[in-house]
Amino acid sequence: MHVVDDLPLVAPRTSRGLPDLLPAQARARHHLIETIREVYELYGFLPLNTPAIEYRDVLFGSAGPDAEKSTFDVVSPEREDLGLRFDLTMPLARVVSQYPDLPRPFRRYQVASVWRADKPDPGRYREFIQFDLDSVGAPTGAADAEVIAAMCDVLARIVGRGHFVVRMSSRGILELVLPFAGIPQEHGAAVFRAIDKIDRVGFANVRRELMDGYDDPSGDRIHGVGLTADQVDLIEAFLSVQHEHRRALISALYDLFSHIDGAMEKIEAVERISEHLYRLGYGDDQVVIDVSIARGLAYYTGPIFEAHLLDAPQFGAVFSGGRYDDLTMRFSGEPTPAVGASIGVDRLLAALTHLGNVSSHAATAHVFVACMDPHLESDCMDMTWELRRAGIPTELYLGEATSLAKQLKYADRLGIPLAILYGAHEKERGVVAIKNLVEGKKRAGGVQHREEWVASPTQVSVERGQLVHAVQTMLAEHAG
Amino acid sequence: MHVVDDLPLVAPRTSRGLPDLLPAQARARHHLIETIREVYELYGFLPLNTPAIEYRDVLFGSAGPDAEKSTFDVVSPEREDLGLRFDLTMPLARVVSQYPDLPRPFRRYQVASVWRADKPDPGRYREFIQFDLDSVGAPTGAADAEVIAAMCDVLARIVGRGHFVVRMSSRGILELVLPFAGIPQEHGAAVFRAIDKIDRVGFANVRRELMDGYDDPSGDRIHGVGLTADQVDLIEAFLSVQHEHRRALISALYDLFSHIDGAMEKIEAVERISEHLYRLGYGDDQVVIDVSIARGLAYYTGPIFEAHLLDAPQFGAVFSGGRYDDLTMRFSGEPTPAVGASIGVDRLLAALTHLGNVSSHAATAHVFVACMDPHLESDCMDMTWELRRAGIPTELYLGEATSLAKQLKYADRLGIPLAILYGAHEKERGVVAIKNLVEGKKRAGGVQHREEWVASPTQVSVERGQLVHAVQTMLAEHAG
Repeated sequence: MHVVDDLPLVAPRTSRGLPDLLPAQARARHHLIETIREVYELYGFLPLNTPAIEYRDVLFGSAGPDAEKSTFDVVSPEREDLGLRFDLTMPLARVVSQYPDLPRPFRRYQVASVWRADKPDPGRYREFIQFDLDSVGAPTGAADAEVIAAMCDVLARIVGRGHFVVRMSSRGILELVLPFAGIPQEHGAAVFRAIDKIDRVGFANVRRELMDGYDDPSGDRIHGVGLTADQVDLIEAFLSVQHEHRRALISALYDLFSHIDGAMEKIEAVERISEHLYRLGYGDDQVVIDVSIARGLAYYTGPIFEAHLLDAPQFGAVFSGGRYDDLTMRFSGEPTPAVGASIGVDRLLAALTHLGNVSSHAATAHVFVACMDPHLESDCMDMTWELRRAGIPTELYLGEATSLAKQLKYADRLGIPLAILYGAHEKERGVVAIKNLVEGKKRAGGVQHREEWVASPTQVSVERGQLVHAVQTMLAEHAG
Repeated sequence: MHVVDDLPLVAPRTSRGLPDLLPAQARARHHLIETIREVYELYGFLPLNTPAIEYRDVLFGSAGPDAEKSTFDVVSPEREDLGLRFDLTMPLARVVSQYPDLPRPFRRYQVASVWRADKPDPGRYREFIQFDLDSVGAPTGAADAEVIAAMCDVLARIVGRGHFVVRMSSRGILELVLPFAGIPQEHGAAVFRAIDKIDRVGFANVRRELMDGYDDPSGDRIHGVGLTADQVDLIEAFLSVQHEHRRALISALYDLFSHIDGAMEKIEAVERISEHLYRLGYGDDQVVIDVSIARGLAYYTGPIFEAHLLDAPQFGAVFSGGRYDDLTMRFSGEPTPAVGASIGVDRLLAALTHLGNVSSHAATAHVFVACMDPHLESDCMDMTWELRRAGIPTELYLGEATSLAKQLKYADRLGIPLAILYGAHEKERGVVAIKNLVEGKKRAGGVQHREEWVASPTQVSVERGQLVHAVQTMLAEHAG
C-alpha cells in the first residue's frame, strides 16, 4: 500500500450520481443559467436564496417523508432532524409562510442545487441544478399564462422556436374522466398514476394496470385498479381527444364532457390561459393542449404544463410546472394561490450536449501570452496586464513547460484564439508577434498555394506600442 | 394544536446558521458574484463545478477529520461515509488528481456553497458561498503575484481603491523566527498558532501563551508553549518589523535575519512577488508586507496573503489565500505547485451591508403595469409583452389587490421606477399614463410651488402607440 506520512493514499473519486462539471461543461451550464436568468428578470421576477439544509418536517410535512422521495439526511452538531432539499418549491412555501411581510404577489426565481437519493442513471443525477420561477399570491389565469410564456421565451432563446413544445392540461380536466367513466373519486389517485405512465409503458399496459394488473418485465407485480373494460374504453376515448389546434381541442372537450356537472368551468380555466397565450403570440407551434399529461407531483391543483425538446424527446420534460394552491397548508393551515415552473438545468444541459449544441472549448481567455524566455517574464507580465486593463481576457502562461510548441498546444487545447509571442528577437526589433491559433490550425491541413498562405498570414508582427490595438482588431475579425 | 388533514402544522423555520437571502440581499450577492467572475475571466481562469457531497476521506485524508473542522455528515442510501464540503480547495486537489488529462497549469475558479458545523455568530454562517481562484501546476512567483493582483482588482471594483489592503507574508519568513529565537522546530506549530491570535487577543496574551499559559476570560486554560522570556522578546522583535513600504520592510528583514542560514532565499521569494506587483502598478497603497499574519490553515507552504476592508476591519479577512504545494500528496503521494485565494462572499456581503453599500431595493423590473380594471386585463398584458419584447424588464400586477393605491404601493416598495396606468378613461382617449414613482415619492414631500410641479410632472400621458418609446426615454432620464 502506497503511504504518505505513514497514512495510506486516498483514491480521488466521487460517490455515484454526484458528477464533476469540468470547465467546458461548467461554462456551458453557466451560460444556460444566465440566459434563463435574463428572461426571468425581463419578466420582473426577484431572486431568492434559501439554505440547502432544511428541517425534515419542513421538507416532508409532519406526516413524514413522502414514500416517493428519497432525501439525503444531514447530521448537525445538535442532532436535529435535517435533510438536503429535494426541490425549490417546498422552501418557497416555507419562506412565504415564515416572512408574512414579503410583498404579495411574491414573484421569485431561484437557481440552486437540489439532491435526490434516487438510483442514478445516465443524465439523471443525485445532485442537480433546478431553476424555478413562481408567482405566489397570484390567483388568475394571467399568472399561469405568464409562466408558460416565460417557458417558451427561455426555450426559444436556448434551442430556437420550432425546436420545443409546451404541453398543457389541468388537474381539473383530468379529474373529469372520473364522473365521465363512472369511476368513484377514491380510485382517482390510482387512475392518474396509471395514466401518468403512458409515455413510458404505452396505453396497452396502462389498460392492464387499470383493470387486473400485470407482471412487468422485471417480474414485479403491477397491481390492478379493478376498472371494467367499459370504464377503460371511456378513459381511452378521453385520452384520444387530440388536436394540434388548441381551440379545436377545447371545443372537443366541451362536446365530450357536455353532460358532466362542473365541466364547463374547468375547461374554461384552461381556455382562458390558451386565449391569453394566442393573444400574446404563443401559437399552436409553441403550446399544445395534451390531456394525457398528469405530472407526477401530487401537489398540483390546477393547470399543469411541461416542455419537451422536439430534437431530443428521450430526455423527457426539461421544464415543467403548474398551479399548486395548497402548498402553504402544512405551515399556516391556509391555501395560497400559486403557480410556477422548474427547469432541470442539468437535464437540459445533457440534452444540449447530446444534440452537439455545447462547445467543447473551455477558454475564457481570448489571448494567450506565451513565456518563451524566463528573462522576459516581466515584459510578458506587462503585456498581459495591458491587455487585461483594456478589457481583453488574457492568460499568461504560468506552467512548467519551457518549449513554445508545448505552450501553444496548451493554449490551442483550451481554444484560446490568439497567442502573443515575445522573445529576444522581437524585443530587439521593438515588435510583438501575434499568432492566430484558429486560422493556424485550419491552415495546417488546408493550404494549397503559397499565395493563399501569404495573403492571410496566421502570424503577424506589430510594433510593441500597437499591441492592444492590433489584438482588438484581430479579435473583432475573429468574432466577425 | 392546529391541524390540517389530522396532521399538526409545521413551524416554518430554518436551523441555526442557515439563513435565507431575501430578494434585495440575493440580488446584491448575485451582483457581487458576477463582478468577481468578470475579473477572474478577464484573467482567463476557467470555471469548475464539483458536487457538494464528497467522501469524508477525500475531505479529511485517511487520517480522519481535522480536529478544527466540523463538517455536516451526510447519509446516502448506500450508507457510505459522506460529508458536505467545507471548502473548495480540497475538491480541487481531488479533481486535479482524479483527471490527469486536465490542462496544466489548471487555472480554475469556483463559486459555490460550503458548510461548516461551527458555532454560528452574527455574520458567520454554517452555509456560505466561497469564490475561489487557483493556479495548479504554477511554480513561480508570477502566479502568486497574479493571484494578489486579482484580489486587488476585485476589491477595487467592489469597494474602490484606497478602501482595502492586501497583507502578505510567507510561511518561509514566519519559520525563520524559530532559528532566530533558538526555538526547536517541533514547537513551530504551537508558536504559529499563538502568533495567529495576535489580532484577536493582543500581544500580551500571546506572550503569556508562548511562556507559561493562562486562563482566558471564559475560564478555559490556554496551555503555555514553555518559551523563555528572551525567546519571546526575539519573537516580539521579529513581529515589530513593520513598514508601510514593502521595499523598506524587505530590507529590514534582510538585516534582521542576515545571520540565519537559508533566510536570503525565503525573503527573496517574497521580494520577487513584491517587485512583480510594483511593476504592474500594485503599490504600497494596495499591498503591504505584514510578517504577523499566519493564516489558520496548516496547508500553506509558501507565500500567504489576506485582504481587509479598511472601512470595516471588524469583519476580518474577506479574501485570503496562499501557496500550498502539498495538497495532492494525500491522493498521489506527489506534491503539485499551487497557489490560490478564496473570497468569503457572504462575509463580504455582510460587510458591505454594514457599510450601507447594498441597495434595499429588490426590483428587477423597471416598469410596473398596474391592473386597474379587470376588463382591460388583456390590454395590460399586451403592453407588458410589448415592453418585454423591447428588452425592458416589466412586471404586470398579478396579485389580489384591486385598488390602484395598493398596487402602486407594492411597486413602490419593490423600487420599480415607472408605473403604467391604463383604465377606461385612457383607453377611450387612446393614451397611456406613465407615472414616475421615484420622482413622485420625492415630490410628495418636497414640492414648494405649483409651477415646479407642473414643470416636472410625475405623471405623463402618451399615445398608446408611443408607449415603448416614451418608457425608453423616461428610463434613460432616470438612469442619467
